[in-house]
Amino acid sequence: MRRTRLTDAECPISRCLDVLGDWWSLLILRDALDGATRFDQFERNLGIAPNMLIRRLHGLVADGLLQRRQYQQRPPRHEYLLTERGRDVQPVIIALGEWGDRHRGREQRSLQLVDRETGAVVDPVLVDRGTGRRFDEIDVGYVAGPAASDALKARFAELAAGPEEAAARRG
Amino acid sequence: MRRTRLTDAECPISRCLDVLGDWWSLLILRDALDGATRFDQFERNLGIAPNMLIRRLHGLVADGLLQRRQYQQRPPRHEYLLTERGRDVQPVIIALGEWGDRHRGREQRSLQLVDRETGAVVDPVLVDRGTGRRFDEIDVGYVAGPAASDALKARFAELAAGPEEAAARRG
Repeated sequence: MRRTRLTDAECPISRCLDVLGDWWSLLILRDALDGATRFDQFERNLGIAPNMLIRRLHGLVADGLLQRRQYQQRPPRHEYLLTERGRDVQPVIIALGEWGDRHRGREQRSLQLVDRETGAVVDPVLVDRGTGRRFDEIDVGYVAGPAASDALKARFAELAAGPEEAAARRG
Repeated sequence: MRRTRLTDAECPISRCLDVLGDWWSLLILRDALDGATRFDQFERNLGIAPNMLIRRLHGLVADGLLQRRQYQQRPPRHEYLLTERGRDVQPVIIALGEWGDRHRGREQRSLQLVDRETGAVVDPVLVDRGTGRRFDEIDVGYVAGPAASDALKARFAELAAGPEEAAARRG
């Protein structure tokens, strides 16, 4: 079921893709963030086959993104609630949604992101927590961090040097 | 090759997942954002089979996320450059990376997000563009927007009402 890790386990993006597993899992989390908790709510909204859905739900429980809770005894019925780790996926969902809707005016949008308390429409943008500078106004990118392996450091050094130099260095 | 749309075309998240296609495409875009442009750079870093890679690259060109440009005449060689639409995927990559690294201290990180001009480490957080309020301090969520279909409006009304009421309403 679970595919092998796609790339280096050092990359937090790969790690994350490995855990989220596939688009179905992400769409289940999207529905959970919208307030869905029960099997039939996920099933109707996603149009997913029941056996596929149950497998994904169990996978998300095993990975600690959802927790399964019995809400009725006879007959036994369970609901699926987001864990803190599951709720932490919200920025990913929002970033995906923003990209999907980027070139639509507000009037053309089927979904709208709001402050649930006030109902005010919010417009998400990534900023630096410390300085408040907007990422669409500065040039941000990844570099090798303190725990990077030599291979990862070499990769970023090569990318920084540009393709010609890298090819020359490899001979 | 391309799977059918997973769910309602109204959802910007589904639309986005449909275009990004699969994890490989997202990892190619991650590498492109890191500065990779050439076939062998993607191939070595991803450890992907050449025929798989070429298919994904062509898909990303067809979807307008990469553009293919000849950089050498004899023998003909091409590179793949991010379009503006491709660069717009960066917040998704950053959100995925943050989720993957959320519980690691800075010293444990293999990758570090920096302001490329100053080298300063930046710490991404989503805020509302208008008010600057941090999304981790307010309760944000999706509601039906101005262009929502009746079906989508009904779905959100049902989720807002809670599962018991919804089941009762359906009989």
